Amino acid sequence: MEFRHVLVAGGGVLGAQIAFQTAFKGFPVTIWLRSEGSIGRTEPKLTRLYNVYRAELARIGEAMLAGKPLDLPRGFGDAAAVKSAEDLARLEKAVEAAKQNIRLSLDLAESVREADFIIESMAEDREAKREFYAKLAPFLDEKTIVATNSSTMIPSMFSDLLPYPENYLALHFANNIWRSNTAEIMGHSGTSEAVFGRVVEFAKEIGMIPLELKKEQPGYILNSMLVPFLSAAEALWANEVADPETIDKTWTLGTGSPYGPFRILDIVGLQTAYNIVSMNPEAKNPESTAGKIAAGLKAKIDAGKTGVNAGEGFYRYEK
Amino acid sequence: MEFRHVLVAGGGVLGAQIAFQTAFKGFPVTIWLRSEGSIGRTEPKLTRLYNVYRAELARIGEAMLAGKPLDLPRGFGDAAAVKSAEDLARLEKAVEAAKQNIRLSLDLAESVREADFIIESMAEDREAKREFYAKLAPFLDEKTIVATNSSTMIPSMFSDLLPYPENYLALHFANNIWRSNTAEIMGHSGTSEAVFGRVVEFAKEIGMIPLELKKEQPGYILNSMLVPFLSAAEALWANEVADPETIDKTWTLGTGSPYGPFRILDIVGLQTAYNIVSMNPEAKNPESTAGKIAAGLKAKIDAGKTGVNAGEGFYRYEK
Repeated sequence: MEFRHVLVAGGGVLGAQIAFQTAFKGFPVTIWLRSEGSIGRTEPKLTRLYNVYRAELARIGEAMLAGKPLDLPRGFGDAAAVKSAEDLARLEKAVEAAKQNIRLSLDLAESVREADFIIESMAEDREAKREFYAKLAPFLDEKTIVATNSSTMIPSMFSDLLPYPENYLALHFANNIWRSNTAEIMGHSGTSEAVFGRVVEFAKEIGMIPLELKKEQPGYILNSMLVPFLSAAEALWANEVADPETIDKTWTLGTGSPYGPFRILDIVGLQTAYNIVSMNPEAKNPESTAGKIAAGLKAKIDAGKTGVNAGEGFYRYEK
Repeated sequence: MEFRHVLVAGGGVLGAQIAFQTAFKGFPVTIWLRSEGSIGRTEPKLTRLYNVYRAELARIGEAMLAGKPLDLPRGFGDAAAVKSAEDLARLEKAVEAAKQNIRLSLDLAESVREADFIIESMAEDREAKREFYAKLAPFLDEKTIVATNSSTMIPSMFSDLLPYPENYLALHFANNIWRSNTAEIMGHSGTSEAVFGRVVEFAKEIGMIPLELKKEQPGYILNSMLVPFLSAAEALWANEVADPETIDKTWTLGTGSPYGPFRILDIVGLQTAYNIVSMNPEAKNPESTAGKIAAGLKAKIDAGKTGVNAGEGFYRYEK
């Protein structure tokens, strides 16, 4: 069974990327949005993505002419299959088609009717998501598969709202989906195996590397490791054991990794790191390690040093 | 102040490597050993290191002839400074001299008398180390600096035994010191700044990258991050959230690191990972995550799958 039409609910940073990549791989896509205002915010995101994909191909074209190795974004496909100007033209055509393949809609009933796969990519707010699923439920039939792209919540937090919970699971993408092409796939205890397998196939069809979870796990696989690792690094810094540069150097030299924890924190953003440590009740005690981490991050955030996007976090970046 | 003579106490895997690298960089070195039996076990280690260093240079020489990039071990020096057959001959001479520069001794009094820097690299056993420091104390004068290479203990666990605790600190090396050339340097609260600075300089003199800790921290910098990261990965595996291959793939794709946690565990060795999780009192409860990790590791260890050195751990390796 092939999906014929994909619906992305929500046009935020990830929603727009999921929609564009899915359309780039040939699927007709509808983005459902809650309001006219959302349309005004989503359209420029799609235009930016169109330009990003075109810029990637222009760069590939130049490398091809210069006889240099082609650093094809992993989400574009197999680099070995791109050899000639024709291969490149085929990709350029797919970018143009992507633009045509995406439709924005405010009508949920109609959007759901034509879709056989729905990816929910609404704000990371439990109540807002529950409201969305309650609104979605009456329009679903037993053939429509629904996935959440939530980073921090798990499917069993919402499956009770769906008429066919066996058709519901998580499909979690990373930012810059066309390069960081991983898709973590996680069911709840009632997800059907056939549905799980179908979504694994879909992930491959849109150029992702599927990473299968056998059980529900808050944080999926990557964040389940990244959070304790980054917390340990933050503790060394907040307890004044060593400075961020020394800690990063230790990690990169000791493990061969390209980035140390404070470079990763700058990429993730210090506000996200602050939100995570603040969930720990200990963070209220300024004498505790969590409290010192929270205070240290807050001082940097208050100074506008929130990470790479701000031009400065633990390190400075050229704008 | 230059160190004129370095004493390494203990001729184990790391002790032999520290001695050989120090001698390779031109320092006269004595290895103090407790018994004739230790001499018989240390000599082959030094012969092996001599062969390893020579093999590295032979490889460099071949690459030089073939006009290929020189992958000089970082502990050998700056790769940019090795350009000609003369540069290579100089390094070859240093390897020959290293062999001549190392003396083995069973006489602690005499060994200490001629040394101005002592690196304790005895077994990781608190009582054995305390015994050694008690025996060493009467021979020390106010000019001799003493460092421990302990991985798991901190200097304040032994500083009370030394007549000049201000001259005592930790200087922690990694295995395969000529390639993994990091040296974590950590004082206790009473270590003098001048001594700390002198040992940082020494680390550079023997080709290491010094990583300075401003406070005592069990596990130093690297293991303080590595242990919680690896434990989080082990938990995903032991709780059957995902298999080791998927977890490793998620980490390498998500962070750009060359190795995922289960490849690192194979390198560290499963016995060491088992010892670490067993220190957690929860590991006695088979229903707990720590208990499941311990049981999973023990099953692999009992089957002889202890890691890279055994040819199999979480992965299989060509012998």
